[in-house]
Amino acid sequence: MAYPPLGDMLAALRETTPLVHCMTNYVAMNSTANLLLATGASPAMLHAPEEVAEFTALAGALSINIGTLSTPWAESMQLAARTANASQTPWVLDPVAVGATAFRQQVCQALLPHWPSVIRANASEVMALTGLASQGRGVDATASTDDAAHAAISLAQRQHCIVAMTGETDFLTDGTHHFRLTGGHPLMPRVTTLGCGLSALVAGFVAANREHPLTATLAALACFSIAGHRAGQRADGPGSFQVALLDALYQLTPDDLSSLSQVEALHAV
Amino acid sequence: MAYPPLGDMLAALRETTPLVHCMTNYVAMNSTANLLLATGASPAMLHAPEEVAEFTALAGALSINIGTLSTPWAESMQLAARTANASQTPWVLDPVAVGATAFRQQVCQALLPHWPSVIRANASEVMALTGLASQGRGVDATASTDDAAHAAISLAQRQHCIVAMTGETDFLTDGTHHFRLTGGHPLMPRVTTLGCGLSALVAGFVAANREHPLTATLAALACFSIAGHRAGQRADGPGSFQVALLDALYQLTPDDLSSLSQVEALHAV
Amino acid sequence: MAYPPLGDMLAALRETTPLVHCMTNYVAMNSTANLLLATGASPAMLHAPEEVAEFTALAGALSINIGTLSTPWAESMQLAARTANASQTPWVLDPVAVGATAFRQQVCQALLPHWPSVIRANASEVMALTGLASQGRGVDATASTDDAAHAAISLAQRQHCIVAMTGETDFLTDGTHHFRLTGGHPLMPRVTTLGCGLSALVAGFVAANREHPLTATLAALACFSIAGHRAGQRADGPGSFQVALLDALYQLTPDDLSSLSQVEALHAV
Repeated sequence: MAYPPLGDMLAALRETTPLVHCMTNYVAMNSTANLLLATGASPAMLHAPEEVAEFTALAGALSINIGTLSTPWAESMQLAARTANASQTPWVLDPVAVGATAFRQQVCQALLPHWPSVIRANASEVMALTGLASQGRGVDATASTDDAAHAAISLAQRQHCIVAMTGETDFLTDGTHHFRLTGGHPLMPRVTTLGCGLSALVAGFVAANREHPLTATLAALACFSIAGHRAGQRADGPGSFQVALLDALYQLTPDDLSSLSQVEALHAV
Repeated sequence: MAYPPLGDMLAALRETTPLVHCMTNYVAMNSTANLLLATGASPAMLHAPEEVAEFTALAGALSINIGTLSTPWAESMQLAARTANASQTPWVLDPVAVGATAFRQQVCQALLPHWPSVIRANASEVMALTGLASQGRGVDATASTDDAAHAAISLAQRQHCIVAMTGETDFLTDGTHHFRLTGGHPLMPRVTTLGCGLSALVAGFVAANREHPLTATLAALACFSIAGHRAGQRADGPGSFQVALLDALYQLTPDDLSSLSQVEALHAV
Repeated sequence: MAYPPLGDMLAALRETTPLVHCMTNYVAMNSTANLLLATGASPAMLHAPEEVAEFTALAGALSINIGTLSTPWAESMQLAARTANASQTPWVLDPVAVGATAFRQQVCQALLPHWPSVIRANASEVMALTGLASQGRGVDATASTDDAAHAAISLAQRQHCIVAMTGETDFLTDGTHHFRLTGGHPLMPRVTTLGCGLSALVAGFVAANREHPLTATLAALACFSIAGHRAGQRADGPGSFQVALLDALYQLTPDDLSSLSQVEALHAV
């Protein structure tokens, strides 16, 4: 199977600056908006039941993240996900800490029938979604990426979606084709909500590249991998890392991505 | 008409550190508080109907931004705006993405009768408020500042208020006197919620300079223009820009503002 | 009375990375999560009544901050505080601007019977909690630390808790033993929600050092004092200060803390 170059995905994002409707947690809102603006997408955060469906229909993609969940938000997420599915707008689910409480499991089980295009999660979240035992104690990933690859493939097949499972090594699958991606930097888990922001960035890439959702998702992960690596070279700690990451995403070029297979351990498995 | 020097406005802000009651969106809360603290005002964020009127009456000014709107917040904004108007406390309206959904238009139409002192908006928001066709697709400004100047003047006249329409070029009017202000930096739209923060900063300047609301608003815009320009000289991207902007606002002196007409394209039109 | 070295407290935090359940205000959520991650604890923000008790029981400690209060949140805080008290999970109360409105006083009075382990507040908040006249006008501290020391001791005795009263000089007491701690930097009050983040960091230190809550609280304050001082040496303003503070907390070593009595004015009084 042939894939278009990853750089084309970024070029399309920059050209179309897709509007990404973000329903995300309070912790992640500002950092997610900045990650999207730095890379080249256009974020909008809104959640009121009075307007959420109207706005989802305008957007290039929807990103739902259940971080600081509550019942009113869960109801709005239902409206938005249903609208996205009905209007064939791509949408991304980020099931934050789904294994931690019964409430989160119920909300995710109610969202899955609206067929997310991509699920972006850490390994313990993927395992919780597939009904396997999760060692997750909240927002941290404690299951190893290797242990969870089978769960990711099974989830992708059952949901007919892409699963982007991120961690020290990322594992990406649409149920048939699989990729591993390394890179990034050990400081990344020391900055809050980078994974939340990545989920919204995936939505932006998929919006800008509707024909190639798997490659688009891989490109979003590759942006984080390369920019994270570069930011780590310049950082003295998590404060300067966060600043350098935004700068690196802004400076990233399509060529940086297209040459990724030469410079980073990217390979189909 | 003679105006006091812009630098006097900043000196008054620093001397009185006015308390600004901010009812703003979740994305902007942290960055708005930091922009106010860096420049010299004192922010406080609260929104509960049980306390909002009590607090507005204590504050030097109120700033209402409808970014992540919901019905409970809209009701609290009504309470706060009514209190501000009744107690002659200056208040600023930032009608984020008012043209994007019917809900936003309704909420803004219900706030306008409480007579905001200043409306701080981008061009498409100004045009949506005046009932003109808007090309806005959300939080981005897509109408040009020039096209919208007539809409801004008409809105200022109808609402007996100041309209601060910001973009690549800012246009400021009280319906009779008009200013254009350039400066800033192309990285500014790549950082989220700077406009939201500017609205709250306008509230702070007007609180500290009750006799001169137009000059005070111009001073707030000038702070962003100069500090944005300086931050751009030091930034490698939107991450370092945001950091440098806070530092530049903190370092700004009254003299920097008073000499603005010599160094930047500031002129009455 | 002998205290274990402060450095042991930080070493235990880094070893156990305690999960801190944060119920904090919208302004502080992102910065609090980053402060905890930088220092070595693991934050999780959630507040829904459907899951809050379930999650508090899993956490190493709970931190409640009433900044952007509302009735639904106040009800969830009740659930969480009751759970923490019942399960002997340490919890920290940060009574933001308690003196400013009747609503805040009511909510705090309803939380105090659940016996917070530590109250982290500024001087005017401590005085408002003890029923003394407060000059507070909101989120700023206006009472001097010296004036308020007696109020802090009385509050600690009445509530059988630790009171960490922070400001230019910090005053720490469990009602019997008292400490003063200087350090930090004048830029600290120019960055929003540092105090809110410190409250959550206290929760993390107490979770990691259950046998030594007073020393653990002192260690959290000392981290801010030393890291704040170092960040101030590198900062050009509040923007770069915030970045440097996260880096300094990340770089802090147990030895830095244990040698504190030699390098900073730390003493029992």
